[in-house]
Amino acid sequence: MPIISSGRSAPLRNKAGEPRVEDNGGGAPIQEPKPALHVALYQPDIPQNTGNVARTCAATHTPLHLIEPLGFHLSDRYLKRAGLDYWPHVLLRVHASLEALRRELYSSRMVYFSAHASRRYYEFPFQPGDCLVFGSETKGLPQEVLDSETDRIVQIPIDRSRVRSLNLATSVGAALFEALRQLACYPEEPVFSCSPGLGDRSEVEECVPSLPPS
Amino acid sequence: MPIISSGRSAPLRNKAGEPRVEDNGGGAPIQEPKPALHVALYQPDIPQNTGNVARTCAATHTPLHLIEPLGFHLSDRYLKRAGLDYWPHVLLRVHASLEALRRELYSSRMVYFSAHASRRYYEFPFQPGDCLVFGSETKGLPQEVLDSETDRIVQIPIDRSRVRSLNLATSVGAALFEALRQLACYPEEPVFSCSPGLGDRSEVEECVPSLPPS
Repeated sequence: MPIISSGRSAPLRNKAGEPRVEDNGGGAPIQEPKPALHVALYQPDIPQNTGNVARTCAATHTPLHLIEPLGFHLSDRYLKRAGLDYWPHVLLRVHASLEALRRELYSSRMVYFSAHASRRYYEFPFQPGDCLVFGSETKGLPQEVLDSETDRIVQIPIDRSRVRSLNLATSVGAALFEALRQLACYPEEPVFSCSPGLGDRSEVEECVPSLPPS
Repeated sequence: MPIISSGRSAPLRNKAGEPRVEDNGGGAPIQEPKPALHVALYQPDIPQNTGNVARTCAATHTPLHLIEPLGFHLSDRYLKRAGLDYWPHVLLRVHASLEALRRELYSSRMVYFSAHASRRYYEFPFQPGDCLVFGSETKGLPQEVLDSETDRIVQIPIDRSRVRSLNLATSVGAALFEALRQLACYPEEPVFSCSPGLGDRSEVEECVPSLPPS
């Protein structure tokens, strides 16, 4: 069974808002990142989708949060099939609930993606630190979120008379790259940089190896 | 074996630029669409990826062009696993070569996605009718394209020291929704509409059932 290095639901930042240095279970001490954005999957069902989302997150220095229960085991071969070479770059956290995620990312705004929204995601002004939250492939997001967070629920505009929903990893890709575009984040540059408003982005370079490919 | 209704590499428009009405092999006569954009996959290898791209295309009224050889059969179960309900909305064309695609879409501009580009895709001004071309998962695009079409090659910005490339369907999703955003296309509306520059978009509603789920 894989080890999640920094513990389940360990906070990314301490309460004072300072980067936290902790041991990753035998390796060298690592510094917590100050991510431009987060991605969270609520109760994902299909391991291949989460694997592809993890690939996108690794490629863009974006922490990935999974909210239990998961429809697969973290050692699932489909989850990691295409990922042996990028898993060391995935900063993964597993949370027992959406509330636990909210507590951990207390300074982040949650932005929810749902077919039940009327606002297009690219018309939503993303902010540094936002966490993009996606529902389960089969069940979507919980009704209480849809009822209570109406000003932060957005949709990816598709013809739902033809296709009920996009593939989860496709949705995350479209959403995350739009948010990165808005924030002028350039993951392809030698030093990952974002817009000046984000402060010192050099910390993003320190990413936590979290899910060994064993 | 599935039937591709309008024949292999049948032109989407006739030379006079008029929409073409043809029989789809037993069904009612259909009118060819006037698509906002096209997506083309060059020699795709992995059927699940093409299936997910087809889902995105169906959801956005975007014709999907596949350039042979394909790494799978069009009846592959993985290609269609998630797609029994959306395949009737996929306008699919199979072409023997990139040149055949170019001949068919003679009035479209080809925009190539490659890790070898320096220009970010969202800084590229897309135009109505553009065809977004993606290379094989394993081999990318042919070298002669990379050498000759340098002003129309764009990249999705990722940290390639960590991840060599994104999942193909994720790339297509990010690219296609950015182009739709730029062109102010709204697939979610009762009548699919784009920016005024695209002319009468009502024709887009007529989409060709092309790949039966049999």
